[in-house]
Amino acid sequence: MQFLSDNAAPVHPRLWEAMRAADATDAPYDGDALSARLDDAMGALFGSECAVLWVATGTAANCLALGPMCPPHGGVVCHREAHIEMDEGGAPGFYLHGAKLLLADGEHAKITPEGIAAVIDPIRDDVHQVQPHAISITQASEYGCCYRPDELAAIGELAKQRGLKLHMDGARFGNAAAFLGEGAASAAGVGHVDALSFGFVKNGGMNAEAVVFFDPELADEARYRRKRAGHLQSKGRYLAAQVLAMLDGDLWLENAAAANEAARALGGAAGERLLHPVEANEVFLRCTAGEREALRTKGFGFYDWGADAARFVSAWNADQQAARQLADAIADL
Amino acid sequence: MQFLSDNAAPVHPRLWEAMRAADATDAPYDGDALSARLDDAMGALFGSECAVLWVATGTAANCLALGPMCPPHGGVVCHREAHIEMDEGGAPGFYLHGAKLLLADGEHAKITPEGIAAVIDPIRDDVHQVQPHAISITQASEYGCCYRPDELAAIGELAKQRGLKLHMDGARFGNAAAFLGEGAASAAGVGHVDALSFGFVKNGGMNAEAVVFFDPELADEARYRRKRAGHLQSKGRYLAAQVLAMLDGDLWLENAAAANEAARALGGAAGERLLHPVEANEVFLRCTAGEREALRTKGFGFYDWGADAARFVSAWNADQQAARQLADAIADL
Amino acid sequence: MQFLSDNAAPVHPRLWEAMRAADATDAPYDGDALSARLDDAMGALFGSECAVLWVATGTAANCLALGPMCPPHGGVVCHREAHIEMDEGGAPGFYLHGAKLLLADGEHAKITPEGIAAVIDPIRDDVHQVQPHAISITQASEYGCCYRPDELAAIGELAKQRGLKLHMDGARFGNAAAFLGEGAASAAGVGHVDALSFGFVKNGGMNAEAVVFFDPELADEARYRRKRAGHLQSKGRYLAAQVLAMLDGDLWLENAAAANEAARALGGAAGERLLHPVEANEVFLRCTAGEREALRTKGFGFYDWGADAARFVSAWNADQQAARQLADAIADL
Amino acid sequence: MQFLSDNAAPVHPRLWEAMRAADATDAPYDGDALSARLDDAMGALFGSECAVLWVATGTAANCLALGPMCPPHGGVVCHREAHIEMDEGGAPGFYLHGAKLLLADGEHAKITPEGIAAVIDPIRDDVHQVQPHAISITQASEYGCCYRPDELAAIGELAKQRGLKLHMDGARFGNAAAFLGEGAASAAGVGHVDALSFGFVKNGGMNAEAVVFFDPELADEARYRRKRAGHLQSKGRYLAAQVLAMLDGDLWLENAAAANEAARALGGAAGERLLHPVEANEVFLRCTAGEREALRTKGFGFYDWGADAARFVSAWNADQQAARQLADAIADL
Repeated sequence: MQFLSDNAAPVHPRLWEAMRAADATDAPYDGDALSARLDDAMGALFGSECAVLWVATGTAANCLALGPMCPPHGGVVCHREAHIEMDEGGAPGFYLHGAKLLLADGEHAKITPEGIAAVIDPIRDDVHQVQPHAISITQASEYGCCYRPDELAAIGELAKQRGLKLHMDGARFGNAAAFLGEGAASAAGVGHVDALSFGFVKNGGMNAEAVVFFDPELADEARYRRKRAGHLQSKGRYLAAQVLAMLDGDLWLENAAAANEAARALGGAAGERLLHPVEANEVFLRCTAGEREALRTKGFGFYDWGADAARFVSAWNADQQAARQLADAIADL
Repeated sequence: MQFLSDNAAPVHPRLWEAMRAADATDAPYDGDALSARLDDAMGALFGSECAVLWVATGTAANCLALGPMCPPHGGVVCHREAHIEMDEGGAPGFYLHGAKLLLADGEHAKITPEGIAAVIDPIRDDVHQVQPHAISITQASEYGCCYRPDELAAIGELAKQRGLKLHMDGARFGNAAAFLGEGAASAAGVGHVDALSFGFVKNGGMNAEAVVFFDPELADEARYRRKRAGHLQSKGRYLAAQVLAMLDGDLWLENAAAANEAARALGGAAGERLLHPVEANEVFLRCTAGEREALRTKGFGFYDWGADAARFVSAWNADQQAARQLADAIADL
Repeated sequence: MQFLSDNAAPVHPRLWEAMRAADATDAPYDGDALSARLDDAMGALFGSECAVLWVATGTAANCLALGPMCPPHGGVVCHREAHIEMDEGGAPGFYLHGAKLLLADGEHAKITPEGIAAVIDPIRDDVHQVQPHAISITQASEYGCCYRPDELAAIGELAKQRGLKLHMDGARFGNAAAFLGEGAASAAGVGHVDALSFGFVKNGGMNAEAVVFFDPELADEARYRRKRAGHLQSKGRYLAAQVLAMLDGDLWLENAAAANEAARALGGAAGERLLHPVEANEVFLRCTAGEREALRTKGFGFYDWGADAARFVSAWNADQQAARQLADAIADL
Repeated sequence: MQFLSDNAAPVHPRLWEAMRAADATDAPYDGDALSARLDDAMGALFGSECAVLWVATGTAANCLALGPMCPPHGGVVCHREAHIEMDEGGAPGFYLHGAKLLLADGEHAKITPEGIAAVIDPIRDDVHQVQPHAISITQASEYGCCYRPDELAAIGELAKQRGLKLHMDGARFGNAAAFLGEGAASAAGVGHVDALSFGFVKNGGMNAEAVVFFDPELADEARYRRKRAGHLQSKGRYLAAQVLAMLDGDLWLENAAAANEAARALGGAAGERLLHPVEANEVFLRCTAGEREALRTKGFGFYDWGADAARFVSAWNADQQAARQLADAIADL
């Protein structure tokens, strides 16, 4: 009864099947038949022309999306607790050749036009200060909260006014889309967002994420950057197979919905303990060390979140019964 | 009857099994039980303490091996036709922050102590010229030729004298070891080489290579660099599973031997046409456009190699009968 | 009656003389007789062996000092309003190849052991988070305040405990030393600090700063980095001449004391308006737009500091009478 | 009687005057009145709109010119013996974030359209190989030879056809222009060249070079890069003063002509010993160790050039009588 991380879950059976089906010899790198289908498959999902690159990790996806958006001397606005700032080992500094993350505040790890303006308005327009070139938002946020369409539009408008590109880190994009319930394009802010890191690994994949460029020019440069970063796999067809299997029959939404359901059960039992609304598949609860100990004694696995809180994450294969048991245990605290 | 690339071949069935067996939930990144076994498994193979990092591609493996060996202002000696120079999209320039490849000549894409000295001896020992910090050799070379133990020792001695680290790009290390026939440690120049990029993808793997550090201090830094490059996969156990399955019962040697056998058949038929001795799984033949056309008409797939030559590469799943047919066709030209 | 910036002042006459005296042909780069004297001259001043590199700007000095202290995947702790964070156009990101500045809080733009600990203690010791490798402090701080010897010792102790290198940005080091009054070594925290950017340009120089390494090994690497950054000037003797002329007869202290005196006059008149104690040559005052207008009408030049404050900076050539007039004008507001 | 390097010569008296005249307080960085005059002054010289940045060294000038021309994943074609390849400590790798120099051959360290094509034509148009983005030529070349206008036009045509930017390293541009005798615009290939590193330090300057962008968009980015590299000096007016004094009354041409005259005297005496035609201010002679010893015994200073040659460089302040004496001594060998 593990709620540690959606990174730890198994690979979905339909992805195993798809990878096995891709086993016949085909052209290496991204010259294979499956990789060739990605642009159309994503284009159909998002109702928008797009150029798609597979890549093995979310960190690489974010950096390959941001790379063509920001020169080495520029900056990218993101939330102070964004994954690119906190948990990617300085990867943006590497991939963007020393560009700077400009940190905005905002509730629930979401940023707002006001929060962005508070960061960039004081920047003098001269060479002594790092100028903003892009914004990166996370859908769902580090605290499992989702941007609504109007919030995305507002950020998109600001980006347009200021001449900034807009990136969405969608490591848990499926969970956000499942919660929002209005389709992929709406959740992705198509029309506002220039590139989406569409995550599958936390949602039942093995090691395939997709960088979806709604601005195909950015993709042209990203292809060189992917190779240069050692992320152009020789047998790319196994990554393409994972992505296509996820899109097939909206498996990505189905998996995410299952994870969300388990989280919702926990959230429903948590009442005042909740630090953030439960919208995707993460639950952050105030609870003492003793309470955490009590839950662990009952066999539940999860991470401490500082001294006074705990984080529970559910995965595509969540055992809903276990989730209800945990919910009961939380309610009993 | 495809002899285009060993990059295009399927995944070996025993790797599929091993990956499936790794499917149960385990700790993410490299915290899982399989990843934890890699150091010992490689240590047993090479008869030497070592620290092992899995990574998805050979380009990343090479760069993560070289990164801790050379500061940004330094240089790495390699053959003028080395993969890191010719075919990695400038990845060493990226990972080593602008360090320079210092290009040596040598027959069959192998370098010698003399060739290395010819590059580094003229470098003035001042800040105006890039100073060498490491050497990178390829086993088997870009032309499928293998360094003998005494050649490795001689390069190792030179490296030691000059205070240079020594890296081996072993994208086709299995093919070299199978040819040399004296075991992994001998083929890897253990005692001389500081890090080996041990390739599996061209040898029946899906997307797992191993960077084997015989100097564990280098590995400590490489771990940070791997994360920073977005190469620390969330579900690393699937990569560890591939590597362990390859080592199990020396599958890596068995696969490589099969590929070599097919290449040897072609080489045996080629006579004077051979541009390089056939030692591993690559065959480079002088042949005219008309001759290439003739072979293709018979159904054989391969790459042109400039205007007057062709390259044939065999894989772990080589059809030995097809290889003999191709050998006959070559002999008939 | 200009109090805009000490960057705008003329070059001191004794530096002109020294540069003219250096005009005879000598070996290029730093092979000349004057450059060769720098280590000893600084060693005598600081009572400590040191290795000295001249360089044209404070930004370059800071980056060349920090470069050898922190790998590309590491971090440098500094104050949130430090010059390297706010006003160097992202130069640390460039020179340190994407390393990260870790921002600490502290009154008057000074940091404390507690402030540093608050930044680095929460960093998990794993590859997902950027690990601290160095600390950078500014003497005098961005708000013209000085670290006392015991404060330097406390930070030095913390640095030692945590295995961090310690850098001092001394763009206005002379002003700090003149204020503290206990000599160069004391103001520089010799024994605690690994490298000092010793600024002369704001103190009557033309374009020479000195990076003083108290750890000579760092200097060896910095020499390569200086060349690589295009900062090894062909006729370095003109920079060495400036530095030596500054040290000669403690001109640096004399110039700084004159600037400080003017600032002290302003500070003495400012009373409750002062935002920070006046210790060096900068004065930050609360004052309204109307009050600023009034001062400008009287012919005083200075920068606005946000909407409700002003910054006055005095230089080595401060007109003390003008400073007293400005002090009176401030008192009259 | 020193013919070691034009880097070692004194500063021309008119530059000293100009710098002293710039001593009055003015706005810092490049906000001063002198810096503001550079675009027009260079525009008048070259008969072409241009944007000019001063910088302290030729290495920085070259890198700031090339930076905006080539992305980190790209390549710059230059001669195998170009200064940027041989003698800048890897600066292009640093400033261009790991971009690659693509090395062309050519007599007298000059490259030709054929030489460039021989480098770039074999590059496959895919992400595995570094693609060319710019060409850099040196006027005069490392061996003191000059590109004629038709040679510049031919390279410019090729650059245009292939979509490559064109940079000219003019560390000794004055010497080239003085030799060619058809004006600055002709020597600079205006209309073909996108940016010129216009060197003054070797020609009587102290520490000011100019990057002249004939494509002003490149300059906009270069300004950020200059600051980020720590090359935006606080008191930039002293650099602007040097540049303007050099342009005033064509002092740059006069100085260069004097240096050339001395070199021509040596060249005229050298006969069959000459390794390269003497066009600018460098003379490369075949001569034995014994002959070099003989010349040194007579008091002449110069560098060995490998085991069997010597390099003589004359400067703006060349003693023409000494040059004739040396010429005689060479003739007597």
